[in-house]
Amino acid sequence: MKKYILPIIGQHTDTVILANGDFPSHPIALSILENCKYLVCCDGAINNLSATDKIPNAIVGDCDSLSKENKERFTDIIHRIAEQETNDLTKAVNFCVQQGRKKITILGATGKREDHTIGNISLLCEYMRSADVEMITDYGIFNAITSDSIFESIPQQQVSIFCIDQYKITSHNLAYAIKDQVFTNWWQATLNEAESNEFVIKTYGRTIIYRAF
Amino acid sequence: MKKYILPIIGQHTDTVILANGDFPSHPIALSILENCKYLVCCDGAINNLSATDKIPNAIVGDCDSLSKENKERFTDIIHRIAEQETNDLTKAVNFCVQQGRKKITILGATGKREDHTIGNISLLCEYMRSADVEMITDYGIFNAITSDSIFESIPQQQVSIFCIDQYKITSHNLAYAIKDQVFTNWWQATLNEAESNEFVIKTYGRTIIYRAF
Repeated sequence: MKKYILPIIGQHTDTVILANGDFPSHPIALSILENCKYLVCCDGAINNLSATDKIPNAIVGDCDSLSKENKERFTDIIHRIAEQETNDLTKAVNFCVQQGRKKITILGATGKREDHTIGNISLLCEYMRSADVEMITDYGIFNAITSDSIFESIPQQQVSIFCIDQYKITSHNLAYAIKDQVFTNWWQATLNEAESNEFVIKTYGRTIIYRAF
Repeated sequence: MKKYILPIIGQHTDTVILANGDFPSHPIALSILENCKYLVCCDGAINNLSATDKIPNAIVGDCDSLSKENKERFTDIIHRIAEQETNDLTKAVNFCVQQGRKKITILGATGKREDHTIGNISLLCEYMRSADVEMITDYGIFNAITSDSIFESIPQQQVSIFCIDQYKITSHNLAYAIKDQVFTNWWQATLNEAESNEFVIKTYGRTIIYRAF
């Protein structure tokens, strides 16, 4: 079974995508942004990043919203992808995968418009087909799975499960045990709790696991 | 077909529930809070409300988190519901329905932890069985439907659709027309756009419609 660890401050992440939601403020998210080796910035997020001393390695998106100043300053690293079928986050993930960067942490993908938040979280189930992608917010970490998986946890850590497919789920080491249950609405498997240093989710459906900080 | 209108500033709403997410900051949400005739506050939200001059008519929740000061100040309007099977928002909705208040606007139910945001939005599909409940955030308005419905809109207003059930959907007057489609992931029907002053969604599945401000 694949094991999903918890992020820690000071962790050196390979590839980070900064999306255009709320700019990270939690120490773990900020630390990952600061310590990443390769940073891809969705074009709408560059204005927020400009307020820091972090320089992106690439800017990806339709680039309509880039200021003239940023277009000139970053001309060598702008990768304009004009097609309208995918959002900027998906364009950034595809860009990374094309470069062989398949271990990706997404930051700044929630907050602001709730439809963007929900959409971005659910896109993890598409990204998992081609890469190993996690999403870290100011409130927790999202992972998408489609097979039995182990999650590192802190005792009493809040855990929520979202089933994109309505498939049976079983848990081990969660406070409210799940046994071959099928959930038919998004809220039904939220607000669970880790019992110890790891828990297991068993399923074959597309499932998103959230561990709150 | 039932028609769902857009909220406006100055609107006099009958019953409002203030939940424990981000305190409203958008002018429409603030106006609804200010002008409501009856305000139910989830217990965790009372601290934010205390910073305004608005007095709730009822405080509902498990009330564990109420300060000693607020417990004394609001002793006559506190309705403590200790059971752990429902969250504070659901307790507040049930409280309103028991009082015959069946036209409810929820504010402050998004922002902060994303699992709470997603859970609260999806709970609209439970609430619609017993009341007429809308959710207004700083970014837009959510309604839950389970039959053909008309929505008031502004031309080019952003519209996202979330299918809790995987049932066929058809749209009229949306920029990206939907014709008997079944959506199998949350993001697939997001980022559409109204073409004129109203649009129609036809479905028999539990569906959540979001109109962005």
